[in-house]
Amino acid sequence: MKYYVGIDIGGTNTKIGVVDADANVFLEQHIKTQSIDGAEKTFTRIWETIVSLSEQLSLDLSNLVGIGMGIPGPVVDNAIVKIAANFSWGNDFNAKQLMEQISGKPVFVENDVRTIALGEKLFGACKRYDNAIVIPIGTGIASGIIVNGKVLSGSSGFAGEFGHIMVNEHGQKCGCGLIGCLETYVSGPGLIREAKAHMLEQRNGLMFTEFQNKLDEFEAYHVFKYAELGDSIANLVLDNFAKHLAYGLGVLVNLLNPEVIVLAGGLAKSAEQIIQRVNQYLPKYALGISLPHLKITKAELADSAGIKGAAALILQHYTAQH
Amino acid sequence: MKYYVGIDIGGTNTKIGVVDADANVFLEQHIKTQSIDGAEKTFTRIWETIVSLSEQLSLDLSNLVGIGMGIPGPVVDNAIVKIAANFSWGNDFNAKQLMEQISGKPVFVENDVRTIALGEKLFGACKRYDNAIVIPIGTGIASGIIVNGKVLSGSSGFAGEFGHIMVNEHGQKCGCGLIGCLETYVSGPGLIREAKAHMLEQRNGLMFTEFQNKLDEFEAYHVFKYAELGDSIANLVLDNFAKHLAYGLGVLVNLLNPEVIVLAGGLAKSAEQIIQRVNQYLPKYALGISLPHLKITKAELADSAGIKGAAALILQHYTAQH
Repeated sequence: MKYYVGIDIGGTNTKIGVVDADANVFLEQHIKTQSIDGAEKTFTRIWETIVSLSEQLSLDLSNLVGIGMGIPGPVVDNAIVKIAANFSWGNDFNAKQLMEQISGKPVFVENDVRTIALGEKLFGACKRYDNAIVIPIGTGIASGIIVNGKVLSGSSGFAGEFGHIMVNEHGQKCGCGLIGCLETYVSGPGLIREAKAHMLEQRNGLMFTEFQNKLDEFEAYHVFKYAELGDSIANLVLDNFAKHLAYGLGVLVNLLNPEVIVLAGGLAKSAEQIIQRVNQYLPKYALGISLPHLKITKAELADSAGIKGAAALILQHYTAQH
Repeated sequence: MKYYVGIDIGGTNTKIGVVDADANVFLEQHIKTQSIDGAEKTFTRIWETIVSLSEQLSLDLSNLVGIGMGIPGPVVDNAIVKIAANFSWGNDFNAKQLMEQISGKPVFVENDVRTIALGEKLFGACKRYDNAIVIPIGTGIASGIIVNGKVLSGSSGFAGEFGHIMVNEHGQKCGCGLIGCLETYVSGPGLIREAKAHMLEQRNGLMFTEFQNKLDEFEAYHVFKYAELGDSIANLVLDNFAKHLAYGLGVLVNLLNPEVIVLAGGLAKSAEQIIQRVNQYLPKYALGISLPHLKITKAELADSAGIKGAAALILQHYTAQH
């Protein structure tokens, strides 16, 4: 049987999955990325894991059609990572070439957000839509923009940087160097920072009582949990979060008129709560004519989106031949 | 000789041009749109003008390959105007069908901003670029977004509504019903309103002295003129205009990573002054990584962009056969 491998490389962990032509994941393994040791060592460990997974599945490596890799940072030509954001690899790093040398298999590389969008387009929540936007929200926020059925790269691989729309001129400094980016509010760390600030200022309510002596243990999902329990600080913070997100979605709707917007990433576990609030604010920011046609929903692939989307890079090129 | 007709239908005037396969305009005529009389009368007058222009050029109507029409409002399937914005035609108006009945020729219809973008893509400032954004600034502001060489329509024909990004939550009410849209600042009327407000408040300087007794005669181009003469109110107003535009362009750059942004429309006559100021503010709103690859420039087709772009709708379909 022909098979495929999808790899989702993150700053800390790398997920490796063996899939069939329909992107069904047979077996999946997570390893540490440890990019500090250099790309060659990381990629060699990834390849060794692929060999081991293939053996466990009794699959003959000669039937491995190819490898798809999703990597954070701008990627061009399905090959070159222009800027090493969280990695100790240099800029203009030819990830395709290195992995092809190590594996002897065809390799396609893409930005990780775009692989997630591709996964949702081919196998998940955007399957029936040609104009869609997939928005992973977690440590940061970004967007995979699908236009006429294809994921948009832009002229130099930088398209989709939704998190760096400015929403507050006098806001927080963002990791990117700009001030008041959407990401400084609409992200896990942004949510935690705002919740802590409000708890320390207002010093009341269920959530504050629970965490006043262990603020270090406070996580983003607590905001959603305590908002449901009726805590007023949690509700205020979540409302601000939703308002900022609604502003960003309004921009996307006005510019791109998508059929569907899909929330993905860690915070999408609370997608229902987010969408309900976003829908209250969206009419303030998006043209009314575009809203009846718009659906906002939750990603379908959850954690496997990265693997399936990466595998899809290969599937798109090779399955037509089978 | 085979020939083509491009039509740019505006709220007040309609421009009709006869072009060859390279979109060279042989002859052009402007007539009143008078949509109040109904689409059939307007389209019949347009057709009569086409017949008259053909006669003047001694062109045989049997050689007229087809007609392209640019119309304000969302257009789908190169045929149907979804919403009659400035016209007394109903919604879901099949402009293609009506014009084909009247003329007996193939007709393609598109949103006017997208025809301008298509014109600049095929014959003007975006000729060499596959990822470009054309921004007409005049009575309003909008965008024709070119992605992978094609002008983006969105899922229901509403893409490109750049003017309705919200830039001031407590700002002016916009014609679209939203509050504080970019268009309320970055447009001819917005520029005039802001300049008048500042003149009446500050009551000093060259520009105020000139216009204090004839504010009704004040036009948008005066701001550019007096800014060059060093008038401080004109410079302040133009700076705010540029700052708001830079914010909008920052959003476009972050989301779409275009190679070129082209300023078109009436205010593009002062494109140099606008671009110079926008470039000062853009690094505040756009990711630095995308800026070295970006060119901001002036439209090349000027007033004929609408005609050439509309004709291009037909040219794209038929010239391959010649």
